Amino acid sequence: MTLVGVDVGGTKVLAGVVTPDGEVVRAFRGATPGRLAPAQDVEDAVVAAVLEVSAGSPSAVGVAAAGFVDVSGSRVMFAPHLPWQGEDVRARLTARLGVPVLLENDATCAAHAESTYGAGRNASSVLLVTLGTGIGGGLVLDGRVWRGASGMAGEFGHMQVVPDGSPCECGGHGCWEQYCSGNALLRDARSRIGVEPTVLAELCDGDPAHLTGPMVTAAAADGDLVARAAFTRVGEWLGVGLANLVAAFDPAVVVVGGGVSEAGDRLLEPARDALSRSLVGVGHRVVPPVLRAALGPEAGLIGAALLAHGASSHGRR
Amino acid sequence: MTLVGVDVGGTKVLAGVVTPDGEVVRAFRGATPGRLAPAQDVEDAVVAAVLEVSAGSPSAVGVAAAGFVDVSGSRVMFAPHLPWQGEDVRARLTARLGVPVLLENDATCAAHAESTYGAGRNASSVLLVTLGTGIGGGLVLDGRVWRGASGMAGEFGHMQVVPDGSPCECGGHGCWEQYCSGNALLRDARSRIGVEPTVLAELCDGDPAHLTGPMVTAAAADGDLVARAAFTRVGEWLGVGLANLVAAFDPAVVVVGGGVSEAGDRLLEPARDALSRSLVGVGHRVVPPVLRAALGPEAGLIGAALLAHGASSHGRR
Repeated sequence: MTLVGVDVGGTKVLAGVVTPDGEVVRAFRGATPGRLAPAQDVEDAVVAAVLEVSAGSPSAVGVAAAGFVDVSGSRVMFAPHLPWQGEDVRARLTARLGVPVLLENDATCAAHAESTYGAGRNASSVLLVTLGTGIGGGLVLDGRVWRGASGMAGEFGHMQVVPDGSPCECGGHGCWEQYCSGNALLRDARSRIGVEPTVLAELCDGDPAHLTGPMVTAAAADGDLVARAAFTRVGEWLGVGLANLVAAFDPAVVVVGGGVSEAGDRLLEPARDALSRSLVGVGHRVVPPVLRAALGPEAGLIGAALLAHGASSHGRR
Repeated sequence: MTLVGVDVGGTKVLAGVVTPDGEVVRAFRGATPGRLAPAQDVEDAVVAAVLEVSAGSPSAVGVAAAGFVDVSGSRVMFAPHLPWQGEDVRARLTARLGVPVLLENDATCAAHAESTYGAGRNASSVLLVTLGTGIGGGLVLDGRVWRGASGMAGEFGHMQVVPDGSPCECGGHGCWEQYCSGNALLRDARSRIGVEPTVLAELCDGDPAHLTGPMVTAAAADGDLVARAAFTRVGEWLGVGLANLVAAFDPAVVVVGGGVSEAGDRLLEPARDALSRSLVGVGHRVVPPVLRAALGPEAGLIGAALLAHGASSHGRR
């Protein structure tokens, strides 16, 4: 059995052969052609990655996509960074690969993986937030992924937290991910370059547009105060938004993944503080632990492969 | 079998004999002594109401309490309008009544009732919001009440929607219920008395402190523009907050109950408009219907009775 998981984002496709125990035994990384390319080009990239990593013979494939997947798990309805807009991606990939294909939102896949083998493995319910360019979210309740009535649960990033706040790519204003994400971190750090002394100015060769998230993470680790303050502010917004979500869902644990989470406690400590300050009823309730994700950037593909395995071994989604 | 449901709030206790089909065949309304009274006085009021309505012989009792109930369903941990603060209410009532007693948050009970026999009866998942003095909330996912890891899911009212916004009784600032609740409606309407011409001035005899929610509802029905504007603003905030919750949970339907919902579409139309404007991915997804609750003020006691019935007939919660 060669179980394959694929994580498809706006710039890259990550594929891996995954064991039923969640181990990635072989991996492959390719490029995706971006949202302005024909939809077929992204499918080509997925098919190539699957065939490459599985030596041409996958037995089941799970696809984790950075977008809204419909309730039947057939189509990507809306994806800001991919050209898919309602195409029946699952049917097309199934036809081309000749094996069962499962399609699911990437953060939902990551939530399943983290709750099965990662930071949430001993918890009855997990709320996962991934901080990348934006915010991804997933929920596992009583051990099962909660997909929602239309398959689109977990879109935490577009919770409005500031009335008439920063405009968001989604068309709204004041969405949480405008204040708490890799983009928010970069915007914060860039705004200080040339204003306060910071090693970030050298790291980006004086051009704030060249600043990247890993540069801010590295500078913060080296003690740069501007970089550290940016993590503190993003962490505080993380805690405020988590307080809203914890009040609503009351999960056993919160897991934070995505590139920004690589800063670890530099991000999570301010988040825990803000959660404890903001959560209603603190003192009369359990405040869930806020844990760093354990499976790294492969969480999405691992979860997709595990979900595909479960679906094909049970004959249903 | 005499199945009894009791809804215990800050000022009143409502008890009813409920059939397994959710019909209330006899009801009783009493007063509660308020949050400064000894905890035992509230228990006395509950016991008296149960015995009164059941002619002294209940067979099972469900108690819907306006507060945070712990995960075991034994204690009210925190209740802004009741004196209970961690007492083992269930054990005490069980001992006094001599029959099985179930204890649950009132809005969670109402969500169960509305999803079983009310506005959400055909839906696989229901998000319920009750607009009374504050906001209550409950969730039914795949036909089952979602209580949360610590029993405290559904506290939607304390979602922060305005940074550094209006101070809230919970100790936080900018909580949703500060902008969307009976109290918010009254505050809005009161602030216009003496500023704009409105029949509300006469209804409250010139003293804004005497204005009540039903007065605002009646004035709006009679065409008073100030009262109507207050409902529109509260309705818009309802839709904005619902957009956050729908993005997160993706329920099949949203049900709105509580006293403020008696204004019907005057409240719900602005809410639906704001939900459709604010919800991420509109145009690529289903926007759930926003329905007025069907069971009225008895929803809580009906749900408590049904949950008690399910618990006693299955030998577990």
